[in-house]
Amino acid sequence: MTDARVAVTVDLVVLTVREQRLSALVWWRDRSPYAESWSLPGGFIQLDEDLPVAAQRLMAERAGLTDVRIHLEQLATYGYPDRDPRQRVVSVAYLGLAPDLPASTRAQVMWRPVDGLTVKGRIAFDHRRILLDGIERARAKLEYSPLAAAFCPPEFTVAELRRVYEIVWGTPLDPRNFHRKVTGARGFLVPTGTTTTRDGGRPARLYRRGDAESLHPPMMRPTW
Amino acid sequence: MTDARVAVTVDLVVLTVREQRLSALVWWRDRSPYAESWSLPGGFIQLDEDLPVAAQRLMAERAGLTDVRIHLEQLATYGYPDRDPRQRVVSVAYLGLAPDLPASTRAQVMWRPVDGLTVKGRIAFDHRRILLDGIERARAKLEYSPLAAAFCPPEFTVAELRRVYEIVWGTPLDPRNFHRKVTGARGFLVPTGTTTTRDGGRPARLYRRGDAESLHPPMMRPTW
Repeated sequence: MTDARVAVTVDLVVLTVREQRLSALVWWRDRSPYAESWSLPGGFIQLDEDLPVAAQRLMAERAGLTDVRIHLEQLATYGYPDRDPRQRVVSVAYLGLAPDLPASTRAQVMWRPVDGLTVKGRIAFDHRRILLDGIERARAKLEYSPLAAAFCPPEFTVAELRRVYEIVWGTPLDPRNFHRKVTGARGFLVPTGTTTTRDGGRPARLYRRGDAESLHPPMMRPTW
Repeated sequence: MTDARVAVTVDLVVLTVREQRLSALVWWRDRSPYAESWSLPGGFIQLDEDLPVAAQRLMAERAGLTDVRIHLEQLATYGYPDRDPRQRVVSVAYLGLAPDLPASTRAQVMWRPVDGLTVKGRIAFDHRRILLDGIERARAKLEYSPLAAAFCPPEFTVAELRRVYEIVWGTPLDPRNFHRKVTGARGFLVPTGTTTTRDGGRPARLYRRGDAESLHPPMMRPTW
């Protein structure tokens, strides 16, 4: 056979909303290439494991995320010939959306606001492009899927959900309009029957995510 | 380094609407494994080419499609360990959406209705799953992007566009409702100023695709 064999890696774009900012999990590189800089966490696949299994393993080994509720999906695959100076590497990127988690206990792994990471030259390899693709996927998914709830604790208020939309989309939203839309989207939110005052002000209803897989009608980003 | 090297292929899901049926381009396998059966067209990447370049090359070499207007995008990557009996192969699938094209001049390449291909055991390797993923991607894309026009000739009527939606979604649509929605979606359709009677009946306006990249508001599949 005339096949060329290449190294295959999985890279992880794990996003959360933390201290009111969209943040990504990054890995501090202590060796060349790109020593003394951040990269996305990732690693080589093993010959006997499927790609999602590799992604789960690397979430634990490299990102330190085990036993946490994270939505994980394949993002895209990157394979231009010179993306790694050492050898030809094809990387399958996975996107994870997580609620705010405790800070990592590993010195090498940290949540950083994406605004700083997406500045050119701040992050190793082609990981800026992969991160930007992950952010755009998350923004788009919030339009037509209930995945914004993946950034929330299991029970949340409409105002907390709106803050997720505002932070991920980077734009303020009209509270009454937002409330009408999310509570009108079939199967998106299920009232728990309890209320909270943690938002401040009057008691607000708590919701959990319903079983809808897509939003009808969708939530659309404001367009200018 | 502890990396395992694997073979990387590109597989092509090329869809068109042909004789009122959603159809895919398939390759007749004349050698083992899966000899005497259909597969998706595809092949190994070369060490010096980027993935989209490999996809374009294989569109020409394997699918015989050159100099044709085809929308091509990455679909997903498949890599479970036993998907090819010969060796570990990670396959990056690309989805192509094409207008109805002349029949292939190669005996080994043919358009076939997807209904027959998606029956279990009809198509080699894990290509049924890849094909099903491609069909679902096309169906979803028709909701929030103007890509249905990729199945049409450069100038088309609203009735012709509706037939694309009906065939890809597999459901009849109300003509007046459809007309109102597509002509109301900003930047989807641009009138050419001419009409045609090729639909039969009264002269119908011809349109070409506008420059919108997404549909606001989106077209949604009927839900039951």
